[in-house]
Parts: sequence; C-alpha cells; structure tokens
Amino acid sequence: MKKGIAYYNIGELFDYYMLVKAATKGMASNGKPFLTLILKDVTGEIDAKLWEATDEDEQLFQAEQLVKVTGEVNQYRGRSQLKIHSIRPAQPTDGVHPTDFIEKAPVQKEELMERLTEFIFEIQNPNLQRIVRYFIKKYQEDLLVYPAAVKNHHEYVSGLAYHVVSMLKLAKELKHLYPEINQDLLYAGIVVHDLGKLKELSSVATPSYTLEGKLLGHIPIMIEEIGHAAKELQIEGEEVLILQHMVLSHHGKAEWGSPKAPLVREAELLHLIDLIDAKMNMLNRTLDKVKPGEFTERLFAMDNRTFYKPSFED
Amino acid sequence: MKKGIAYYNIGELFDYYMLVKAATKGMASNGKPFLTLILKDVTGEIDAKLWEATDEDEQLFQAEQLVKVTGEVNQYRGRSQLKIHSIRPAQPTDGVHPTDFIEKAPVQKEELMERLTEFIFEIQNPNLQRIVRYFIKKYQEDLLVYPAAVKNHHEYVSGLAYHVVSMLKLAKELKHLYPEINQDLLYAGIVVHDLGKLKELSSVATPSYTLEGKLLGHIPIMIEEIGHAAKELQIEGEEVLILQHMVLSHHGKAEWGSPKAPLVREAELLHLIDLIDAKMNMLNRTLDKVKPGEFTERLFAMDNRTFYKPSFED
Amino acid sequence: MKKGIAYYNIGELFDYYMLVKAATKGMASNGKPFLTLILKDVTGEIDAKLWEATDEDEQLFQAEQLVKVTGEVNQYRGRSQLKIHSIRPAQPTDGVHPTDFIEKAPVQKEELMERLTEFIFEIQNPNLQRIVRYFIKKYQEDLLVYPAAVKNHHEYVSGLAYHVVSMLKLAKELKHLYPEINQDLLYAGIVVHDLGKLKELSSVATPSYTLEGKLLGHIPIMIEEIGHAAKELQIEGEEVLILQHMVLSHHGKAEWGSPKAPLVREAELLHLIDLIDAKMNMLNRTLDKVKPGEFTERLFAMDNRTFYKPSFED
Amino acid sequence: MKKGIAYYNIGELFDYYMLVKAATKGMASNGKPFLTLILKDVTGEIDAKLWEATDEDEQLFQAEQLVKVTGEVNQYRGRSQLKIHSIRPAQPTDGVHPTDFIEKAPVQKEELMERLTEFIFEIQNPNLQRIVRYFIKKYQEDLLVYPAAVKNHHEYVSGLAYHVVSMLKLAKELKHLYPEINQDLLYAGIVVHDLGKLKELSSVATPSYTLEGKLLGHIPIMIEEIGHAAKELQIEGEEVLILQHMVLSHHGKAEWGSPKAPLVREAELLHLIDLIDAKMNMLNRTLDKVKPGEFTERLFAMDNRTFYKPSFED
Amino acid sequence: MKKGIAYYNIGELFDYYMLVKAATKGMASNGKPFLTLILKDVTGEIDAKLWEATDEDEQLFQAEQLVKVTGEVNQYRGRSQLKIHSIRPAQPTDGVHPTDFIEKAPVQKEELMERLTEFIFEIQNPNLQRIVRYFIKKYQEDLLVYPAAVKNHHEYVSGLAYHVVSMLKLAKELKHLYPEINQDLLYAGIVVHDLGKLKELSSVATPSYTLEGKLLGHIPIMIEEIGHAAKELQIEGEEVLILQHMVLSHHGKAEWGSPKAPLVREAELLHLIDLIDAKMNMLNRTLDKVKPGEFTERLFAMDNRTFYKPSFED
Amino acid sequence: MKKGIAYYNIGELFDYYMLVKAATKGMASNGKPFLTLILKDVTGEIDAKLWEATDEDEQLFQAEQLVKVTGEVNQYRGRSQLKIHSIRPAQPTDGVHPTDFIEKAPVQKEELMERLTEFIFEIQNPNLQRIVRYFIKKYQEDLLVYPAAVKNHHEYVSGLAYHVVSMLKLAKELKHLYPEINQDLLYAGIVVHDLGKLKELSSVATPSYTLEGKLLGHIPIMIEEIGHAAKELQIEGEEVLILQHMVLSHHGKAEWGSPKAPLVREAELLHLIDLIDAKMNMLNRTLDKVKPGEFTERLFAMDNRTFYKPSFED
Repeated sequence: MKKGIAYYNIGELFDYYMLVKAATKGMASNGKPFLTLILKDVTGEIDAKLWEATDEDEQLFQAEQLVKVTGEVNQYRGRSQLKIHSIRPAQPTDGVHPTDFIEKAPVQKEELMERLTEFIFEIQNPNLQRIVRYFIKKYQEDLLVYPAAVKNHHEYVSGLAYHVVSMLKLAKELKHLYPEINQDLLYAGIVVHDLGKLKELSSVATPSYTLEGKLLGHIPIMIEEIGHAAKELQIEGEEVLILQHMVLSHHGKAEWGSPKAPLVREAELLHLIDLIDAKMNMLNRTLDKVKPGEFTERLFAMDNRTFYKPSFED
Repeated sequence: MKKGIAYYNIGELFDYYMLVKAATKGMASNGKPFLTLILKDVTGEIDAKLWEATDEDEQLFQAEQLVKVTGEVNQYRGRSQLKIHSIRPAQPTDGVHPTDFIEKAPVQKEELMERLTEFIFEIQNPNLQRIVRYFIKKYQEDLLVYPAAVKNHHEYVSGLAYHVVSMLKLAKELKHLYPEINQDLLYAGIVVHDLGKLKELSSVATPSYTLEGKLLGHIPIMIEEIGHAAKELQIEGEEVLILQHMVLSHHGKAEWGSPKAPLVREAELLHLIDLIDAKMNMLNRTLDKVKPGEFTERLFAMDNRTFYKPSFED
Repeated sequence: MKKGIAYYNIGELFDYYMLVKAATKGMASNGKPFLTLILKDVTGEIDAKLWEATDEDEQLFQAEQLVKVTGEVNQYRGRSQLKIHSIRPAQPTDGVHPTDFIEKAPVQKEELMERLTEFIFEIQNPNLQRIVRYFIKKYQEDLLVYPAAVKNHHEYVSGLAYHVVSMLKLAKELKHLYPEINQDLLYAGIVVHDLGKLKELSSVATPSYTLEGKLLGHIPIMIEEIGHAAKELQIEGEEVLILQHMVLSHHGKAEWGSPKAPLVREAELLHLIDLIDAKMNMLNRTLDKVKPGEFTERLFAMDNRTFYKPSFED
Repeated sequence: MKKGIAYYNIGELFDYYMLVKAATKGMASNGKPFLTLILKDVTGEIDAKLWEATDEDEQLFQAEQLVKVTGEVNQYRGRSQLKIHSIRPAQPTDGVHPTDFIEKAPVQKEELMERLTEFIFEIQNPNLQRIVRYFIKKYQEDLLVYPAAVKNHHEYVSGLAYHVVSMLKLAKELKHLYPEINQDLLYAGIVVHDLGKLKELSSVATPSYTLEGKLLGHIPIMIEEIGHAAKELQIEGEEVLILQHMVLSHHGKAEWGSPKAPLVREAELLHLIDLIDAKMNMLNRTLDKVKPGEFTERLFAMDNRTFYKPSFED
Repeated sequence: MKKGIAYYNIGELFDYYMLVKAATKGMASNGKPFLTLILKDVTGEIDAKLWEATDEDEQLFQAEQLVKVTGEVNQYRGRSQLKIHSIRPAQPTDGVHPTDFIEKAPVQKEELMERLTEFIFEIQNPNLQRIVRYFIKKYQEDLLVYPAAVKNHHEYVSGLAYHVVSMLKLAKELKHLYPEINQDLLYAGIVVHDLGKLKELSSVATPSYTLEGKLLGHIPIMIEEIGHAAKELQIEGEEVLILQHMVLSHHGKAEWGSPKAPLVREAELLHLIDLIDAKMNMLNRTLDKVKPGEFTERLFAMDNRTFYKPSFED
Repeated sequence: MKKGIAYYNIGELFDYYMLVKAATKGMASNGKPFLTLILKDVTGEIDAKLWEATDEDEQLFQAEQLVKVTGEVNQYRGRSQLKIHSIRPAQPTDGVHPTDFIEKAPVQKEELMERLTEFIFEIQNPNLQRIVRYFIKKYQEDLLVYPAAVKNHHEYVSGLAYHVVSMLKLAKELKHLYPEINQDLLYAGIVVHDLGKLKELSSVATPSYTLEGKLLGHIPIMIEEIGHAAKELQIEGEEVLILQHMVLSHHGKAEWGSPKAPLVREAELLHLIDLIDAKMNMLNRTLDKVKPGEFTERLFAMDNRTFYKPSFED
C-alpha cells in the first residue's frame, strides 16, 4: 500500500485513494463556490479544497464516498492542506474498499475477544464474574467494534476492546508486583468501566455524542446499568456497590467527571491504569509520525504539550 | 418553655433538661477521669465537662439519655462550654420527653404531605406524574421525617420535606414571573432531586453517611433509582432522561458533584432554587440568634462568612 | 412584519429591511475592495459581505443607515453570513423606521415607570425611601431607556428598567415565602444596584464603556453616588452604609468585582435575584430561537454552555 | 532598657515590666480559675498564664494595665508562653510609662510630617496638589499616629505615615531611573492610597475593623472621599478619575480587593511600590529577630514562608 | 515478637519495649512538669504522657533510648495516646536492640543491590550506562539505606532503593506491553531520579531537610550532579540533556516542583511509574492496618482521602 | 530617519526600507501564489502581502533581506497589514544597512560594560566577587549583545545587559532606602540571574528556544553553571548555595518556574526588582506609541491589560 497521508511533507504530490469524511460548500471571495473536503486514510486526515466546484462535484463528493485524488500538499495556518488537482469517485474496478481507509486497532477483533475471555475466566469471585459475563453477553457485538473515544486516544475501530485488553494486561503485571491487589475486582472494573460509551457515542465509524451522552455521560449511564444487571441477576453482595464506585471514580476527581474520588485501592489503580494506557496510546501514535530529533505536534489531551523524540532513538 | 441553650450568654447559669447527644471519657492532667458530654435542645448544642466522673456517671450519662443539669456557661477557645455543677438522669415524673429536645421543621409532617400532594396534583405530563407518584409512594414514610443534610441547612427532623415544599412554592412564583418555564418538569425535578439522601444518610435523629453514601453519593444513587422506576413503570419518553439530567446537574458544576452542568432551563432553575432555599434557611436560623447591630458566627457552608444584622431591623 | 433575521436558515433568501450597525472596508485577495456590514433587526444581527464595493457604496452604507437588502444566508466558520445580492438605502416612501429595528424591552417604558413607582411606594423606611426617590428623580430619563449591559442579558432599550422591575417582582414573592426579609432594604438595593451603569455605558443605542466605566466600573461609581446623595439629603443612619454595602457586594465575590462578599441577608438575596433574572433573560431569549429537540448556540456568559430544549415541550 | 520579650529564649527568666494587652479568665481542669494574659512590650507579645488566680487578680490585671512580672519562658505547642511566678501592677515610683511599651515607627511623627510636606511641595499639577493638601489638612492628626494595618506590616504607632514616606522615597528614586513616570500622579496616589484606613480601623493603640471597614473596606471608602473632595474643591479634571482609579487598583487584582487592575502606568507602580515597602518592612523586622544561619518564624502574609538569614551576614 | 503498637485498640494495655523518638518537657496546669514522649516500633508511633516527671526521668528518657513501658492506650482528640503506668530504660539483659524498632524495607539491602545491578546490566546505551554506574559507585552506601522521603511513602530504612527497584520492575513490564519504550532511558531515569534526596535529607534514621534541601531541593541538586558527572566522564551526547530533563520533569508539573513538564515519552512514564509505586506503597501499608469492612485513617498525601477495604476481601 | 512603521496609521502610504524577518508562500483562493512577509524596522513589525508573487519574488524576498517597499497600511482582523504596491531588494547604493533596522538597547554596549564593571567592583565578599567575575569573563561577548527574552520585555540587541544594569541601579537605590540589604548578594544575584538565557536562546537577531532551553530552561541551566564555577574556583562557602537559590527562586513561585519560592531577603528583592524593570520596560515602550487620552494595545505579558495614557500627560 502507498504511504499514508500523515507521512506526506509540504510540497509533495499526492496521487491515490482516500475516503471523504465530510464535505461542505463555501463561497470564495471571488464569488465562486468551492468544496472543503476532509479526506482520510488509516494514517490520518487532511483538509482539501476543490476550487470552482460545480453542482455535480457537490453531488459526487459527499461523506463516505471513496475518491481517487491528485494534488499538492500545502501549508495553511500551520496545518497541512491538500490543493486538489483532480478528483474522481473510485470505481469498482479500482479494487479499493472503504474499510481499507478507516483506522482499526492493531489487533483483530476475534483475537481481542479471545484475550478478553481468558481474563474474565480468571475472575473467581462469583458475583463479579456473573456481572462481567452479563455485560459481555449483552454488548459483545458493539464492544468489539466501538472506538474508546471520539478523539484523543483509541479513537478507531475496536479501540474500546483494544484499550480494555491492554489495561487487563497491565493489571496482570501489577498484580504480580503488588500481590495485595484484589485481582477479581480490578479485572471486573476494567472490563466494565467504559461500557457506558456504547450509549454515549452514536456510532463506530463517525462517532458523535448522543443526547444521553450529552445529558448524562458514560459514567452515570454505567452506574445505572450495573444496578439493573444486579437486579436482574439477583446479586446483592457488596461487590455491586464497589463495582459501581469503581466506574464512578475512574476519572479520578470531581473536576474530571468523577463525583467521588477513588476510595478503594483497586479503584485508584483502575484510574491509574486507564491514564497510562490512554497516554501511551497517544504518545506512541504521535511519536511514530516524527523522526528522531524532532518535536511532535501539540497533544491537546496532554496539556497541549509537544513531545521530543531523542536523536539517539533508532 | 425555658430559654434554649443557644441563647445563653457567657457567665449565665443553666438549670434545665437537655438530651445527651454523645459522651466520651477522658483523663485529666491530674490523672482523674472526666466526661465530655455534648448536650442539646431544640435550639442548639453545647460541650459540657463533668470533672472527676465516677464509673457510675459513665454508665448513666450516655447518648440519647435525657438529663437534668445545672452549671455555668463558660468560654473555651472561643466556643461556649458548660461547666457542670450537678447532673442527674431525667425521671418519668419530670414530664419531659426526648422528642421535645430534637429540632424539627417548623411545619408538621402532615401539613407537609398535604402541600406536597397539592403540588404533585398540578403536574400534567403523565410520564412525569407517574414517576413522581411512584417515588412518593415508595419513600413517603422516610421523606416526611428525614433531614435534608447532616449539617449546614435543614438538618432537622422533616427537613427534607420542608426544603422540598419551600422549593416548590418558590418554583410556583417563578413560573408566574417567567411563564416560559415548564412547570411539570421543574416540580418533578424538585420533588425527586434529593431523594437519594434517604439512602445516603443513615437515620433521622443522628444521621451519618452510609457506605453507599460515601462510595456513590445521593446523586448517582438517584440516577439509578429513576432508571429502575422508569423500567418498572414501562415509561420510555425523553422525560426520564431529562429528569435524570436534572438530578445529575443540580449541584451546578463538576467541582460540586455534578458531572454535567445544567443543560436544560429547568435544570438550571432547580439548581438556583435549591441554592436560595438552602441559603435562606441557614441565614434565617443563624440571624435569629443575634441581636440587631451584631454579627453572626461564621457560616462554614457560606464561604465562612459572618453576617451582620442591621441595627435598624426590628 | 416579516420573519426576523435570527430565524432564517442556511440557504434561505432574505428580502427585507435591516439597519446597518457597523460597516468596514476590506481588500479581497483578488485586490478588489469589499464592505463588511453588520446588519440588524429586532431579533438579532448578521454579518454581510458586499463584494466589489464601489466608493459610492462605501458612502451610502454606513452605521445607522436603514437599508433594503436581498441576499442568501450562508454559513461561514460556523456562523451565519449574508451574501448580498442587492442593497439600497431605504426611502421615506418605504414606510419603515430605524426604531423598528432596534430591540426593546417587551414592556413599554411608561408601564415600567408605573411599576417602579408602585414598588418604591411600598418602601416605608424614610431614609431608604428618600435615597431611592432622589435617584429616581435624578436619573429617571436615562433609567427608562438604558440597556442593562453591553451584551449577554437585557442588552436592549429599557433593559435596565425592565431588569429592575423583574427583580422587584421576584423580591416581592421571596418576601412572601421568607417573611424575615427586610423588604425596604431589598427593594432599595434592587432599584439602585445597577444605576452606576448609566455612567459606565456611553449610550442607549450602541453602548460601549466610558473612560469612567473602564477605570472605575459601575459599582465604585455608585458607592460614591450614594455617599453624595446621603450628604445632600443629610441622612446619617446606618441605612446609607448598608445600601452601599449591598451595591458593593452584589456581584457576589471578589473575582467577580465585589471586593466584599455579601455580609447582610438582603445583600446575599440581591446577588441571587440578580443572578436568576439575568440567567432567565438569557435562557428564554436563546431557547426561543430553537425548536424542541434542538440545542441552542453556546452562551458565553453561562460558562459557554449550550442548552437543550426537550422534545416534549410545546 | 532591658532586652525585649521577643529576644528571650526558652528557659530564660523574665523580670521586668510589660503592658497587659488582653486578659481572659479560664477554668483549669482541676476546677480552679486562672488568667490568660497577653503581655507586650515594644518588641512583641507573649501569652502568660497566672494559675490559681484570685478575684482580686482578675480585677487588677486588665487590658492597658502596666505590670511588673517575673516568670519563666516556656514553650507550649510551638509558641513561647510565660509561666508567671509573680506579678504586680506597676507603681508610679517605678518610673515606667505605658507608651514605652507600645511599638512606634522608627521615626518621630514630626519628622514624618516634615518629609511628607517636602514631597507634597514637589507636586506641580494644581489639581493633584489641591486634593492632596485637602486630605493632609483633613486627616493630619490621625495620619501621623495610625498604624498601616492591624497586623503583618507597619502595624505600629505612626506606621501609616512611615509607610507613606518610605513609598515616596522609593517613588523619587524610580522617577530618577524611569523618567517617563508622571511624578505628580505617583506622589499623589501614594499619599492618599491608604487614607481610607483611618475609617477602616477603630483606633491607634488596639486597632480592629469598624463596621464601615468590614462592610466597605478602605478602598471604596477612599473612592467616595476623593469624589467628595473634588466636589468641595470644584475640581473637574481627569486627575480626579485617575486618582480614584489608582486607589481602586492598588491591590493589583480582583482577588486581592481591587475590582479594576491597574490600567495606568503610575497605578501599576503604586501597586508595586506598596508591595515592596510592605514586604521589606515585614522581612527586616522578622529577620532582625534571628541570628545568621537561622530561619525566621513563618510569615503568614508572605505565603507562610520562613526566611533564612545567611551565615555570612554580619 | 509482640503485636506492634499500630495494632493496639483503645483501652488495651501495652507492656513491651519501644524506642524513644523524641522527648519534650511540659508544664501541667497543676504546675507540675510532665514528659511527652514519642515512642515507636516498626509498625508505627504513639504519643505518650509521663505525668509528674522527675528531673531524673528527663535525663533518662531521651531520643534514641530504648525503653520498657507499660500503660493504657487512650484516645485524645481523635488520636491514640499512651498513658504511661511505668517506664524504665531497657537493659542489656533484655535482649532487645534499637534496630529492631526501626522500620525497614521488606527486602534486605544486599538483595536490593543485586536486583539493581541486574537492571543496570541491561542498559546498553554506553553513555547512559556510564552515568548510571558512576552514580551507583559514588552513592552506593547511602542509596542502600536512605528512606525515599521524610514521610508519606517508603519513609523507612532502605526505602529509596526499595522504591527504585520496584519502579524498575514495573518499567520492565511496561516495556513488555509497550515495546516502543526506550528501555535504557527509562531504566537510567529511574535509577537517578531521586538520588538528590541523599543531599536533601539529613540522615537515615531521623531524616529532616538539610539547608541545601530547603533552598534548592532534590531536583535541582540532581540536575547539577548529572552535569558534573558528564563533565568528569567526558560524555557529550544528547543523553545527558535528556536524563537531566527526566529528573527535572519527574514531578509532572510546575506546581509540583517540575519547572518543565515531561516532554519525552520516557519522562512521562518515569513520572507515572513514580506515582503508582508511591501510591501503592502508601495504600498497601495503610490498608494493612484495617480490617475488611473498615475505612483507613486519612492519607494526607492522597488528597486526604480515607480508603475502604471491601468486606469481601480475605 | 523616516517615521518608524509602528507609527503609521491605517490608510497611510509607506515608502521606505524594511528588513524581511520571515517569508512564507501561500495560495490565494483564486489559485494564485502570494507571499506573506513580516517586515520590520527598529520600531516594530508589520505583516505584508505580496499578491500574485512570481518564483523570482520568492527567491528575492527571504528572511534577512533588506527591501525598499511602497504600499498602503490597511487593517485586517484588528491588526495592521501592509498591502504592497511595489517592492525591490535594497541596493548597496541605497546607503542603508540591516543593523539600522534591528532594535537595540538605548545605551551602547561599551557603556553597559562600563556600568556593569563599576557595580561588580562594589562587591566586597570575595566568594561572590570571584564567581561574578568568572561569569562576566566567560560570557562577556554574548552578554553584551543578547536580548533578555524572545518577546515581551527587553527583546532587542543588548537587552539582557541593559536589563541587568537597570536592575543594578534600582538595587543601589533600594540599598540606600533599606540599609539592611546585603548589597553584595543582591548585586551578584542580579548579574547572574538570567545568564542561562545565553544557552536557552539560539541567537541575538532572531532568537528562538534551543533544545536545552526547551527541555531544561534558563534557571536549571544556571544552577548547574554556578555549581561548575564554584568547583573550578574551589569555592566552598555558603555563598554558592545562596546564589543558586537566588537564581532558582527569581521567578517567585512554582507555577512561574521557580520550584522554590524566595527564602532569603535578597532573593525576594531580586524577584521584585526583576518584575519592576520588566514591567517598566514594557509599559514605557508601549505607552510611547499612543497619544495622551488613548489606550495602548493589549499587553499579553501583563494579564492582557490595555493601559490608558492620561490626557493631562505632556
């Protein structure tokens, strides 16, 4: 496959396929209409301008359309922008498919499911295991394809499951280092902590916030879900309350959306593991795009810092 | 009835009944045991010292015991303290009852129920009315006697119901001034907003935080409760979500325990009405204890301010 | 009257009169001059572009000019923008007047004066009444036409008086609910609290901040005014000090411009009533522009929130 | 004169005169009354305990009384405390006077007045000079004896005038270094900036906050005063407004009590000069009490820092 | 060995050896001297009062003295306090040694050194390895016995080395999960990050802050040390700068003492690993002292939270 | 010389020489390339647009090139912008030199060196004097030409030395007013406090942050430098530590980059003197560009305030 759009330098010519993520019509200052397209492949997105666009162009180049495009990568207000030389819809004979242009987790969903199953199998506390199985069964399909967020980290197909599996692996190692940890509790908390996102986000491919997501958010949604599950399963033990607390507190403090800070050891750990895995995902993907001796673009979700890749990396 | 303990000045002699709220044994620096009692009547509390206490004293003077006490009101580190001259358990023949020494809302619970019923009767949206009636039925007994908080405002018997009725009255007036308000929504939100406190607090007379209260808090508890109610009642309309949002956001901002700030007009109003009624309750009860031209004690829940009562009040 | 500009959707054609609020000349990237006009009617404002503007255009279309304009409502960087097709100055024969295009309070100034008079009549404390009457007499003319602010809330003709009357109504209801309130003090505080704005703001129609407004602000201006009034009226009672304190503290805390937080019950109430009336004014006017099931634009003065109008509203 | 109380070490015996600043009666845990006295001389204060105090003791040892006392300097909860061995009221024949025990500025008030007059003589702008002279004339008596604060800095007799003269000297040097400074404005601002304290504080010897001080504070009080002065003097120039702005903004930002931050160069300088002189006063007086190689006690008004005196000082 | 002092309940009698950590003399309100001793064993500390202490007592019971003590565990202001019945210095024949009463890391220092050596052996970058070896050689003796802090976490003998080894283990696992990590850099950063504490803290057994520690702190001290080391070793590569940056930024943000936030992936990880290991150390040791179903005491260094140990723990 | 660019009004024609500070190529919405030039002279900078730029233009007009330009000063988004009518490279025969277009300190570097030498000569403490002389010798060349910052204050040739000399003058006056000051310490601290900027910034003419500057910053760089100097000079006294502390703390608090707040009197003074001189430099240069009765542009480094120049200035 060709080099992804994220790796093009200013001045280079692009000549390949991309997926239209969004298209909006504008009016140039000379009074002529133009199209602003957001084009994407698995490595990233770029803004593109199609000047003097016709009505037909407007019809052809809409979101979800796969296109063949040539053009020059320019810079505009510090961001890359593609000046389109030519563009046409992809043809069946081109042999490209939209799914090839959507970023996915680096691991297949079947394998993610397998890993998840293995970890859940290790949970011995019957109440916790029953609740976790209940949710896996209820949400399996969505869980395996949803992203973990709209942006910032794991914002790709199967991102949520990939994030959960990474966290479980980290939890396993921590249990090894700190044997006092209640592994059942930590595993259960990790599996369910973000399931509320399946209701908070609208879809897999182009996720936005649902009304429920905007007015309640994934944390309160999940508190309620755990309560319902316990009722249905007729579980009454303290495990239900502790699991709800872990979900409630996993953002760490009130300002970040957790009305209660973690008050149980495994809740504190869940918060820290979540933090590490999200940060490593952001850092690794961003650093992957720069060369040794360079700084990355600013990472909004990490206090707008720009990171340096040491020149002695190889 | 005699003047309440809150109205005694330094140096005055006290000679009447009070209720023991708590008793702890200490060791004086001369090596002799003493008892520290917290004594209360409907106007307030006072620390009291019983020096050179015997084992019998320790048995007699425990929490919930009604006592006849004489002593002098002193000052210790800026707070009043009663130096006990004599103390004995109250006798049946004394004609006093523990309930006479516990603060209560200024309105009887029967009348509060009546008011509440009238307001609920005005709710016309069937979904909202069914949910509200469900909760009134489920929690009526506790709702009519619980305090609204452990301290700060409405922290007395029937405080919660009194607070809710006050807020409903205020809501009614606001609807009159701002007719755009959705009265059904606002009334429903007011009635249910603090019901989670019935699970967050342990009891009516000496409320403390339950484990559920500490790990979840009354807001998430109530989100879950509304979800259950809607399921049981098979209500599916947007009213359920909006009502959950109103409860979730009624503390106003994340730092104050609401992961979502109010995003619906009536949610914003619920927050403001709650604020006003809590503040007026604190201010009126505190100002009631000082004379014109004086400052009150510091009000912790109002940024530790001390308020002035103008000398031209009458 | 025609539908107001605030109610037009993207793509609709506009063909009616508007008032030019501001006009600036720019140079397009093709080197040709154009005019950016801000056009307004009673419902709102819109940016408009007149491309390839002539010198004559520049002369004709200046602030305060009433124009007849046709054009298409576009979207530019997330905001509406009018692409002008044709534009001409309004003629006397068109039968339209500038005042029809300036937003006004929903109540006539004569009626506002009447309400105000009724409330002031209820003030019984002679010192407070004399001070209030002094100011009403001194500022009556301006008070009845000034806006309450440059933007955010009650930013229209007679906005200040309308805001004051709304607050007085709310105060009256609160007095009913909380009889401990000193009504004279609260009424007096409400009437005078924002009068400093008559010196802080430059004019009724296109208000900006005066030098005095920028360097002192309406609160210190009014503290001084009350002092002068008391001197002229030879009033010496504590009422003067308390009234000054109410004005000084009505923004609630130091960060918001009140060097002293409210330390008198009625000062706290003045702050809360001000808050509620300002918020309701913003919310109602903004929600009025969206349909049930939609979110409003962001409200900068309310923490940049966007509010939802429930779909079961009618 | 004897070594001041601030210079005694733990374990040393004290045997000299001090002034009683406050006296309160307490009840020891053995049931016997004792007196807690705050004793002071010009170097500082110390808490003192008179155990088993008689009624006569209580009569004799009251605030403002000069006493001869012997006792041992102990430490109690990290603070010095004097255990009184013997105490008696000072006699006329002892040849000591209360004023010898109150801290005063290191410069006589006559000399302060002279300095002040010299500086004011340099103000050439007639409006500024007339206002400044007006205030000097109106408040001369109090200005020359009042402290600059209740605690923290220049909290001694003539502290305010001493602070003002120090600031004027500093201003003169700054004018020399930065000739762009408007010297008239800066001098005028310095002289009047804290005059509101004459109304904010209750007295010279034992200053506390007046009602006016608590409800308005010295800044708004002085805004009003300048307004009155200008009216009386029939001055209308912009100088009045700028001078009011300088007073209003001299605390630097809203959180510190200035609703407007400095927006004029000389207002910013006034703020900075005030800061430096206050800090130098605190630092010098505190460091004076420790030896090279030691840390001072914590300075609350300087972020609770404890300062180090280098061992190579001499 | 006997049950440690941390596990005694109120009311229990203590009869064993403890080490005197500090002793101060006080004066009781009956005028008689008493000693306040802080006594400790490996599980914790307790305040103890020896009433009516003689001069001989004062001589005998000083810091570092091992004592045999009997007494009753009381509660005073919410904290445990030992009322001493009898106390005597320990005798050689008692067969107890001071080192048995000082808390130590759960791993022997020889083993810590071995682990450390293994990890350092894995560093392949020659510059980093040389710097790390330089410091291990220079500070080996202190590194193996110093605590990691004065209080809060790893505040015991060999705490620093134990903390470093724990962090290295965690780093090894993270490298396994996120292979992009530069292991050499992370290992080197972990080994040196806190070595400045050897100069910041005064001693192993009773650490306090040195003058250098108070005026510079361990982070700037270590920046300078790395610079010196590089000069001595004549190393010029970018590794020196990156290693200094890692030490500089390991507290995560300016407010916490790192003038630069982490700007290199491994610097961010160093910060996170440090956080986790410190928190797990605090949590595990605190939770170890409570039973399932109980809350711990407040942990000051963890936002003053009190943690819950679930009742289904075993 | 001609009027500087900072003094042109909107609409005026510019016709003189300027230096190209930066040049970037863009694509106009009509598809034609244009150049955005930043042009500067000693009074300031202006953005300029060269529409329809040729490849030759792109070659000719690059950074550091001196150009002759005519054009009109327009306004774009509230900032001045030069619309270029004609532009050509300056010729040797034009008699202009690049150095005439770079802002410099108002004092020659030779005179700055002389002043500096005089002040250093006054330092009597031998350790401090040796360290200061060491640095002056090591860095003399750069110190005399470097700016004090990339922007905000003293951001011109010789800005650093000019700032240091101004601060020394101010220190001398303060020593006069507050004789307790240790003059040697204060002088030494002032001279070295910002020398780390010689490594933090990349060059004199177009300074940007070096890698060392970004990852460490000038404060830690200088701590290390002082340590090295002391080692080389074999100085061991406390002066080294105190001087390092002064540099470390001179930004005043952790949030501003000083992990330790000033804990020595002269460290506090260094911070205050730095603050005053930086602010006066910003204020004087900005106010110099406006007329009496006007407000300046916003000063980002002074909380984004805009300052007023009183109309009675002359």
